[in-house]
Amino acid sequence: MNKDFILKGDILYSTEEMIIESYPDSYLICNDGKCEGVFTSIPEAYKGFPIEDYSGKIIIPGLTDLHAHAPQYTFRGLGMDMELIDWLNENAFPEEAHFEDLEYAKKAYSIFVDDLKNSATTRAVIFGTLHKEATTLLMDMLDETDLVTYVGKVNMDRNGSEGLCEPDSATAIRNTKEWIENTKNKYKNTKPILTPRFIPSCSDELMHAIGEISSSENIRIQSHLSENPFEIRWVKELVPHSENYGDAYAGFNALGNTDTPAVMAHCVYVSNEEIELLKEHGTYVAHCPDSNMNLSSGIAPIRKLLNSKINVGLGSDVAAGASLSIVQAMSHAIQVSKMYWRYVNSSYAPLKFNEAFYIGTLGGGKYFGKVGSFLKGYEFDALVIDDSKIRSTRATTLQERCERMIYLPAEYTLISKYVKGQKIV
Amino acid sequence: MNKDFILKGDILYSTEEMIIESYPDSYLICNDGKCEGVFTSIPEAYKGFPIEDYSGKIIIPGLTDLHAHAPQYTFRGLGMDMELIDWLNENAFPEEAHFEDLEYAKKAYSIFVDDLKNSATTRAVIFGTLHKEATTLLMDMLDETDLVTYVGKVNMDRNGSEGLCEPDSATAIRNTKEWIENTKNKYKNTKPILTPRFIPSCSDELMHAIGEISSSENIRIQSHLSENPFEIRWVKELVPHSENYGDAYAGFNALGNTDTPAVMAHCVYVSNEEIELLKEHGTYVAHCPDSNMNLSSGIAPIRKLLNSKINVGLGSDVAAGASLSIVQAMSHAIQVSKMYWRYVNSSYAPLKFNEAFYIGTLGGGKYFGKVGSFLKGYEFDALVIDDSKIRSTRATTLQERCERMIYLPAEYTLISKYVKGQKIV
Repeated sequence: MNKDFILKGDILYSTEEMIIESYPDSYLICNDGKCEGVFTSIPEAYKGFPIEDYSGKIIIPGLTDLHAHAPQYTFRGLGMDMELIDWLNENAFPEEAHFEDLEYAKKAYSIFVDDLKNSATTRAVIFGTLHKEATTLLMDMLDETDLVTYVGKVNMDRNGSEGLCEPDSATAIRNTKEWIENTKNKYKNTKPILTPRFIPSCSDELMHAIGEISSSENIRIQSHLSENPFEIRWVKELVPHSENYGDAYAGFNALGNTDTPAVMAHCVYVSNEEIELLKEHGTYVAHCPDSNMNLSSGIAPIRKLLNSKINVGLGSDVAAGASLSIVQAMSHAIQVSKMYWRYVNSSYAPLKFNEAFYIGTLGGGKYFGKVGSFLKGYEFDALVIDDSKIRSTRATTLQERCERMIYLPAEYTLISKYVKGQKIV
Repeated sequence: MNKDFILKGDILYSTEEMIIESYPDSYLICNDGKCEGVFTSIPEAYKGFPIEDYSGKIIIPGLTDLHAHAPQYTFRGLGMDMELIDWLNENAFPEEAHFEDLEYAKKAYSIFVDDLKNSATTRAVIFGTLHKEATTLLMDMLDETDLVTYVGKVNMDRNGSEGLCEPDSATAIRNTKEWIENTKNKYKNTKPILTPRFIPSCSDELMHAIGEISSSENIRIQSHLSENPFEIRWVKELVPHSENYGDAYAGFNALGNTDTPAVMAHCVYVSNEEIELLKEHGTYVAHCPDSNMNLSSGIAPIRKLLNSKINVGLGSDVAAGASLSIVQAMSHAIQVSKMYWRYVNSSYAPLKFNEAFYIGTLGGGKYFGKVGSFLKGYEFDALVIDDSKIRSTRATTLQERCERMIYLPAEYTLISKYVKGQKIV
């Protein structure tokens, strides 16, 4: 597979400073799977590279989904009239219990994996179920797509439901260690990630063990943090010595560190003390605005997190979020930030387009290293998008075409997708 | 055109009580453009009617868009990082000024009309611009689609922008009367509606004249009410004797009455006194949740309005709302109602799916008479929708398939559309 080539088209990407760089009718150079940068004419050194001509099409970096529940994809868009805990008990847990059955898992995951492959997402951090076989199957299937993912066998040894609970912490720990051993070096693009569902689902013993495995094996952790007021009170009861929900994770050594960063989904109600913890640990916040609206959870203070230099990316959170689309998550992020400004705290200005675009590309992409931009040295994840279906009497800049995309995703068509320089769609 | 026929498929509709009736694999009978009801087998009397077999497809009533700005469609999805007044001055007004040029209007409106025709909307209440020729052209084009619409030449004789303001109230009134005279009996399915942009745009003289024309000619009125806090303070300054924004309209006799009901878009900040006024006048509230998020306006108290027996329908409000989709507006309505419950007033429960579906079909449809349901005697507006693209391992009820549609509209395909018994798509 040749990973030296040039894409020609209308190229747009974010820099670290959340500035959007626009290069209409320009050249994006891939050198051995890495980005050499964007040029208005082809530099001498690359004149021999083959050119894929996407003139008139939009080329942007691949998107990162920092939080998705693969087994819940089967009921996306259903059962939304509930809050978190009821929704887990009535929708999520009964469905996840099916994944004990490998045949069922194969059928369900093949749909999820196929739709993710054909989406605008190039990198993802994914929850499986507590079943190690089904989760390994999901990893096998994802690795074949050439997407780059972290995938977690869920841990939950308390407060589950009939058919969905690990029998005791010892079994949970043994199974988790075995699963990690079997998967950590097995794949090209897929890595295991420790996945305590959330504190209400995991005993102290299990949480401590997860923290230890993470440290000793350098395995990352993903979980949920401060999503819903009831959940937060529950965590305080369950871990009474903790100062707050974030501190409860930190006490189990489960907030990661800058070398082995954790992803915490939601962070709707994080206090200043929790924000300090997230910063100290280099934690990534997976902002899931669609889910946070659907489950009536609330609105995460993204402006405040950005001001505090916390790492923020976007998450679809299927199936509390209905859609896998991180493009749509960008407009949702802007919309909820406006409601936050209006109703919660007017000192935190709404997000603007360039900021939402940054979060969905580079903000989450950084979790995977140099990912989510077209600056020199970044891994070559790129999307080619056709917006010719939208008819208008108005001339639009390249940035406007991208802004319009996040509000009208259904009118845009993904025509090619590259991950690490490999064309996968 | 034969208006006696039967559609076979999976049929779902709301009743007045917001109950959803589901009839999988049943028959929807159209008799001379009117609905005869839904039957699980064909009654004897209709056995001769031709059957259109849509087995496996979803059949629901047509949707009503109570508030859309046709000329703004050209910049849908653009320039969202502003509040109302700045957005009007920077985006809406300069674009609307182009509609002085009939050639431009023709080009722009042909796109809007074509997209509206091919959308799930069967009835709409639409703003044009202040230009009577362009607005008449829009009406000509809409009438050819066989959609049923009210269309307004906008009135604005103050606080416009360069190139977009009527020169004085006398000219505005004369032009409006002439336009109404020319259009009120011209069309099969299209009617003129008086359209004072909002109070900041219309002098007292002009508002009084609009109220008078409405009463004497039985012409309905559409406008905007209590969308944005700044706007509301401005109205209080402009009409200092008014108790509130709603009262300002009422004082000009511009809130309509139950026979000639007005549509007021937004109503985000309506007080109890304004709600009483809306009830007394039989006003329809056009709830535009996408727009209200995009312009940081806020969240309309829809549960409170429903509790108060106010007529509520959905509006796309293109282009402050990005999309013409009233299907999407249903999920937006649910989502913002959850944030209202969470952050504004927890005594108003979030909307549920059946309520959002009701508002988008029958709630707004009532503005057009017996429209928006499949009960006997209703006008035959129907949509046939294919959801076979969605793959799942899970069996779903017909109601679940419809719930999923509002969260994942891009995965559903409109395959046929009937208005008053006539197939138009």
